[in-house]
Amino acid sequence: MDKKNVYFFGSGKAEGSTSMKNLLGGKGANLAEMTNLNIPVPPGFTISTKVCKIYSEKNHSYPEDVKKEIESNIVKLEKETNKKFGDPKDPLLVSVRSGAAISMPGMMDTVLNLGLNSTSVVALGQISGNPRFAWDSYRRFIQMFGDVVMGVSHSLFEDKLTSIKNFHNYDLDTELNVDDLKELVNLYKEVYKDNTGESFPEDPLVQLWAAIGAVFGSWNNERAVKYRTINKIDGLIGTAVNVQSMVFGNFGDDSGTGVCFSRDPATGDNYFYGEYLMNAQGEDVVAGIRTPQKLSTLESENPQLYKELLDVKQTLENHYKDMQDMEFTIERGKLFLLQTRNGKRTGQAAVKVAVDLVSEGLIDKETAIMRVTPDQLDQLLHPMIDPTTLNSLKAVATGLNASPGAACGEIVFTPEDAEAKALEGRNVLLVRRETSPEDIGGMNAAEGILTATGGMTSHAAVVARGMGKPCVAGCKAVEISGKAMKIGNNYFKEGDTITIDGSSGNVYSGKCILVYPKLTDQLEIFLKWSDEVRESATRDGVKKGFDVRANADLPEDAKRAREFGAVGIGLCRTEHMFFDEAKLEHFRRMIVADSLSERVEALETIKDLQISDFKGIFKVMDGLPVTIRLLDPPLHEFVPGDEFDSLAKMLHKDVSELKLRIESLKEQNPMLGHRGCRLGITYPEIYDMQIEAIIRGAIFCQREGIKVFPEIMIPLVGTVNELKILRERSEIIITRLFDELKDSVPYKIGTMIEIPRAALTADKIAEYADFFSFGTNDLTQMTFGYSRDDVGSFVPEYLSKKILQNDPFQVLDEEGVGQLVITAVNKGRSVKSDLKMSICGEHGGEAKSIDFVYRSGLNLVSCSPFRVPLARLAGAQSVIRNRT
Amino acid sequence: MDKKNVYFFGSGKAEGSTSMKNLLGGKGANLAEMTNLNIPVPPGFTISTKVCKIYSEKNHSYPEDVKKEIESNIVKLEKETNKKFGDPKDPLLVSVRSGAAISMPGMMDTVLNLGLNSTSVVALGQISGNPRFAWDSYRRFIQMFGDVVMGVSHSLFEDKLTSIKNFHNYDLDTELNVDDLKELVNLYKEVYKDNTGESFPEDPLVQLWAAIGAVFGSWNNERAVKYRTINKIDGLIGTAVNVQSMVFGNFGDDSGTGVCFSRDPATGDNYFYGEYLMNAQGEDVVAGIRTPQKLSTLESENPQLYKELLDVKQTLENHYKDMQDMEFTIERGKLFLLQTRNGKRTGQAAVKVAVDLVSEGLIDKETAIMRVTPDQLDQLLHPMIDPTTLNSLKAVATGLNASPGAACGEIVFTPEDAEAKALEGRNVLLVRRETSPEDIGGMNAAEGILTATGGMTSHAAVVARGMGKPCVAGCKAVEISGKAMKIGNNYFKEGDTITIDGSSGNVYSGKCILVYPKLTDQLEIFLKWSDEVRESATRDGVKKGFDVRANADLPEDAKRAREFGAVGIGLCRTEHMFFDEAKLEHFRRMIVADSLSERVEALETIKDLQISDFKGIFKVMDGLPVTIRLLDPPLHEFVPGDEFDSLAKMLHKDVSELKLRIESLKEQNPMLGHRGCRLGITYPEIYDMQIEAIIRGAIFCQREGIKVFPEIMIPLVGTVNELKILRERSEIIITRLFDELKDSVPYKIGTMIEIPRAALTADKIAEYADFFSFGTNDLTQMTFGYSRDDVGSFVPEYLSKKILQNDPFQVLDEEGVGQLVITAVNKGRSVKSDLKMSICGEHGGEAKSIDFVYRSGLNLVSCSPFRVPLARLAGAQSVIRNRT
Repeated sequence: MDKKNVYFFGSGKAEGSTSMKNLLGGKGANLAEMTNLNIPVPPGFTISTKVCKIYSEKNHSYPEDVKKEIESNIVKLEKETNKKFGDPKDPLLVSVRSGAAISMPGMMDTVLNLGLNSTSVVALGQISGNPRFAWDSYRRFIQMFGDVVMGVSHSLFEDKLTSIKNFHNYDLDTELNVDDLKELVNLYKEVYKDNTGESFPEDPLVQLWAAIGAVFGSWNNERAVKYRTINKIDGLIGTAVNVQSMVFGNFGDDSGTGVCFSRDPATGDNYFYGEYLMNAQGEDVVAGIRTPQKLSTLESENPQLYKELLDVKQTLENHYKDMQDMEFTIERGKLFLLQTRNGKRTGQAAVKVAVDLVSEGLIDKETAIMRVTPDQLDQLLHPMIDPTTLNSLKAVATGLNASPGAACGEIVFTPEDAEAKALEGRNVLLVRRETSPEDIGGMNAAEGILTATGGMTSHAAVVARGMGKPCVAGCKAVEISGKAMKIGNNYFKEGDTITIDGSSGNVYSGKCILVYPKLTDQLEIFLKWSDEVRESATRDGVKKGFDVRANADLPEDAKRAREFGAVGIGLCRTEHMFFDEAKLEHFRRMIVADSLSERVEALETIKDLQISDFKGIFKVMDGLPVTIRLLDPPLHEFVPGDEFDSLAKMLHKDVSELKLRIESLKEQNPMLGHRGCRLGITYPEIYDMQIEAIIRGAIFCQREGIKVFPEIMIPLVGTVNELKILRERSEIIITRLFDELKDSVPYKIGTMIEIPRAALTADKIAEYADFFSFGTNDLTQMTFGYSRDDVGSFVPEYLSKKILQNDPFQVLDEEGVGQLVITAVNKGRSVKSDLKMSICGEHGGEAKSIDFVYRSGLNLVSCSPFRVPLARLAGAQSVIRNRT
Repeated sequence: MDKKNVYFFGSGKAEGSTSMKNLLGGKGANLAEMTNLNIPVPPGFTISTKVCKIYSEKNHSYPEDVKKEIESNIVKLEKETNKKFGDPKDPLLVSVRSGAAISMPGMMDTVLNLGLNSTSVVALGQISGNPRFAWDSYRRFIQMFGDVVMGVSHSLFEDKLTSIKNFHNYDLDTELNVDDLKELVNLYKEVYKDNTGESFPEDPLVQLWAAIGAVFGSWNNERAVKYRTINKIDGLIGTAVNVQSMVFGNFGDDSGTGVCFSRDPATGDNYFYGEYLMNAQGEDVVAGIRTPQKLSTLESENPQLYKELLDVKQTLENHYKDMQDMEFTIERGKLFLLQTRNGKRTGQAAVKVAVDLVSEGLIDKETAIMRVTPDQLDQLLHPMIDPTTLNSLKAVATGLNASPGAACGEIVFTPEDAEAKALEGRNVLLVRRETSPEDIGGMNAAEGILTATGGMTSHAAVVARGMGKPCVAGCKAVEISGKAMKIGNNYFKEGDTITIDGSSGNVYSGKCILVYPKLTDQLEIFLKWSDEVRESATRDGVKKGFDVRANADLPEDAKRAREFGAVGIGLCRTEHMFFDEAKLEHFRRMIVADSLSERVEALETIKDLQISDFKGIFKVMDGLPVTIRLLDPPLHEFVPGDEFDSLAKMLHKDVSELKLRIESLKEQNPMLGHRGCRLGITYPEIYDMQIEAIIRGAIFCQREGIKVFPEIMIPLVGTVNELKILRERSEIIITRLFDELKDSVPYKIGTMIEIPRAALTADKIAEYADFFSFGTNDLTQMTFGYSRDDVGSFVPEYLSKKILQNDPFQVLDEEGVGQLVITAVNKGRSVKSDLKMSICGEHGGEAKSIDFVYRSGLNLVSCSPFRVPLARLAGAQSVIRNRT
């Protein structure tokens, strides 16, 4: 087993199986599995990924035993098919395709029709009864082989094609007759020889070895590497190579080729979804050059064949217990399956399929949970065009609704422009005639993609769905000319803004109002399952749960958070309340106060307003905990940079004195300055006011029958004494208020862990904290020594040079920052074994980070309301994944 | 033993000894020790520090057994002295004095002449044959008891004294006769009764219990607490109380009192140094009201007594093996010792005494090393007035050279003003008629102290020497009036600048030029001993040494560092070189370059200049290693804030474009921005130039016969990949240069550990580092989240509220930052067991921090040249202290 490198499949029997994906790649493993399932698959063999690794390590050569093993499989294939390479009567023709363990559509090389030479082309003509097809296949093979294997530019061949067409005054390729194609073959061979110094190889075995090497080599081509980077694919050793006997969808009108999905990959609806083209080869469908037909046409035109395909679909879906993406070819009325794999799908489809498969009894709930990626869920919450505005909107065009969600941005016409402008922080929409694998970078940078040609399974559509980007494909009204386009009578140039709706296929001029959708019933069911899993989470054998809360500062945010399933507010930033116009004036008056009494007076006014703020939030969160962070940012954030005059007038102060006071608040490094609990210590009256407002608000609500659970959070603690002093002071105020109001509410006082020193001394700090909340934004800033506002000057370069694997502000840095988190968890729990811990940085809404904090023993994550569903799922997956 | 609370001494036998300092305080332990040494000491007993603790814990009361033990010692003392409290013939009079394990001169309370009442005062008059003395003692006792024990304001008594003097038209206290004093006693008793509601106690035992309680209570008075804070005295449980029978230096002309040192406390010279006053009590000497006589006068006037004192001195110095500070009283021709302790001394004296005691065979070298505190050594390097300017300077006055070193500053006249202005960052000189214990805070805040009265052992002189502050005392020419003073014909008001020279006693108008002295021969010897100890330092049984290097950026700094004993440069900051005028222009040109080629061109010019910089340093450091840190600060530090026009003109650039470019360099938090190796990664040409300059400079020097050991240090590394990339790039350049120059030099490439993440991932980083240097300034900033430039707004309050024990930028925070240091040491050494590690932050010159880093396993410290001697000593002390 260990020494085996090549796996044969044919005649209902295969050496491989679907469990050998790492070795055979997804395609190879599934070809073997399908063979074993007695599904009609053209025979062939798979050279394992191990050989890819050896091949690149051995400087593009094979060990002798591997070479022999491949040779013996070639012989076996000839026997199986009863054909011979280069046979003048019945030549064996094969495809040579890549296939890694994780699908990388279109990224690596493929060679078709291999085995054609000046002898076999004649035979193919005779067998097919279509010499034109044979010669067209031959010229395509030379071009493909020249391009893929020998690196001869595609365009050199295209030039010859164009010159012949021009000479004969042809418009279409199809006008070329057999003699034209024979002439073209000769011209192609000349191009080949001129550019490689060798004649085009006649010997099919020479062709085969070269093609296998080229496919292995394509593992490390630029676009494949880039694709793996963008999709964070690592840990693979290489691609497998599948050598498979050819079947032809272009043998005539009784032949054809198609792509189908066992369910709708956009919606997840359970109907047999697919497209096909008669008398065509597979790439004609994928490339989106001809517009394909729906499977329903096949059903009516060839019910027998359709039934056969339907059976295959059912067999495969039942076998794999997941939605399948299949490629098939009909050769002279006979059906062949060329590929099956779990189908890529939109987030909506992923949820629908997972929920349906559970109700169909094919999978259980936890399997369903693992079937939807957090990113897919995120897609569901992508913006859509505000439905209330739709009546007044008029689409300038409609294309295919290729990937859901709406996007607006400045249009760009090249992937390079997309990347460049996105780097400048602009939102761009990439408009292309059709996309190709080289465009990956630009597609990733764009908010959305609009193409002029191509179907629902075109490159643009497949890739956009995978990325979760809105995409409108095949929008025929779009006419591109350089860096401008015309849609009907509307002209757009680069930089103009448009909006696309990937759910409807509509394209709008200008910027539309986007809104976020609510959760569907299906999604609700699915997320409830996730909640059950998280609720059942244990630590050290004891049920602890793993909750999701939201970061929300205002009642409307809190409301949305609750709708999205948050079981509390994990971070309510009180400072955002001060930017409210009613409070800002008094807050500024407080900041520039000349005396304590003036400051206290201003705070009195703010207090009443702040009480209403808290009431609003408590009301919305009735029955759920609300963690309120006391004032955090430095005071200078609240004062104007230049409107001294108006401020002075408003506050009845001298302008120059005011300037001086505001100037004195400026800091060299405000991130590391006078903020958080440092303000609480030096201006105790501010926190006093906030504590009072929280408690008065809570008691007021409680008297109205609302269940309140305020949790007071002290930010930026670095030494235990800060927390000790502020906690003691708060408790005095709270006790005084309880006495005064003759009433009480349950409350907690905890702290942020966001300063490295707090993490390092968490055992001391835990003594005065009812809970910890990790502020991983600041913790990342200080642990890395990166100012989040300033990293733009070097972090992009760090990412491209692989100095950093991820932006540490997006994905929590487990290696460095993670150590501090774990230290704080362990030290905190060494003092209070049940200390409740959460994370409320941006990382709380990112799946990898959620997994890390779950493994670290945190009890809950808090994230922005829109990320709550994602976090509910990601948390459940962490629980399942990390069960021992 | 455990249950004993009171220790008796008398008749050549004492229950205590000098080893019981923690229990008996320094004074009590030494009184016991002297008694056992048969030195004449008035008998008495010491109530231990344990009782102080119990007394404050038990809310100012004693447990019954303690009370009984004190009572039985009172009885014993009456027997020993053959006197009785309140006896109408021969009454027992005692002093009640505080005495903690660490001397706190003048900070706590003392009551003298206790036991006097309306009966015993008469007896004292008869025994002494001097009723005036007896009544004067009585009225002083009432005043002292009223003030110290009952809290009746001193001035209320003084008012009565003044009124009697005015009534009789007396100028001096000495003009009061017995009747006047009797009347005064009555007036004092009225004051006492009016303010306490009780009659002045007649019963000596009542007096005694009250006095003991008062002394215990004074442990926690405000000034004692402040003194302990300033002097960082902690871990003591309280003060002991010494109850000792009185002897009188004011029984007449055959009586007297004095203070003497076994060697000169200012210079350390081995001669018997002291001052005394005949017919006086001890406080008359200390308070500096009468000007005392030198001991040489005693030698000529009473050779027998002088000889006796000389013998005592010799006995004590031989016994304690250290310079002694003694208090004595002569009562009617008989000598009594009231106190001995190791004498406070200047840094110069400390070194001289330590070295002399070694050559006298009294102590060994390591004992000598432990006898000098690092702070004392620091004093030696305090500024002095440039000797070359002395001829042109004319002192406006001369006082006593009470504490060495020169200081200049704006004059202030109150300790409050001193503290307030120092907080504003101004250098102030405190001018006082005489200082008192309440002035401690202001003295600490001032650069130096000038007093109008008082001798070499006055409060100002003693405290200033302890603090290492320059002090000119007893400068009679100074006449103070409110917030102004007159010296001769010169008038000075608050805020005017003067200079004092505490070494000569001179006072100068205005600001003099100050210079730093060189090391004395004595100090050289002493520091060589320290070097030997550090060289012998072992880790895990293997000799590792513990070196001191200096931070020096320019050849002249390096030269001074070498003179001060640095064995290398631990930090040469190349950016300081760029501020040099010749380079700054080109450096700015480089920064605002529009293209790589323009930048490289500017760097070419800088390179040549930088090569000379390095040559200069290598030359001075011939044979010693030089650690050169590549460019660290963000580029915007090098460009002007406003002189765009002139810069644009110079660089032939458009002003607005230049502004834009410079604007784009600005950062929100430059401390956490684009600096250090982040610049090295994004502008590799800068580090390339620096590497080339270092290597070319080194090879040039080597060819001139200079031994060079360049160590290239890469700053601000946070991830191993930064170091890996920069190291690999540097090595390519170095190899290329070695090839080109057909020569090579030994070199190392290491990194700063100054980002928390670097410490946390030090195992990874160690793989690419030849050495680590801890940049504890930045590490402290990021671990605490404190911007060093901005902490002024809250850290002073944090220190006063004891949230922080020390300013973490002065003393390395062992609890937090220290954890990261230890983590990095352990992780680094887990990969390279012999990885050389150093510290080059400000902490490298601070004794406590040096001790910590030695314990943590670092190999060397690097500090500013002036701190090198201190570090050499502190390092040796750490080695001795931490030997297992």
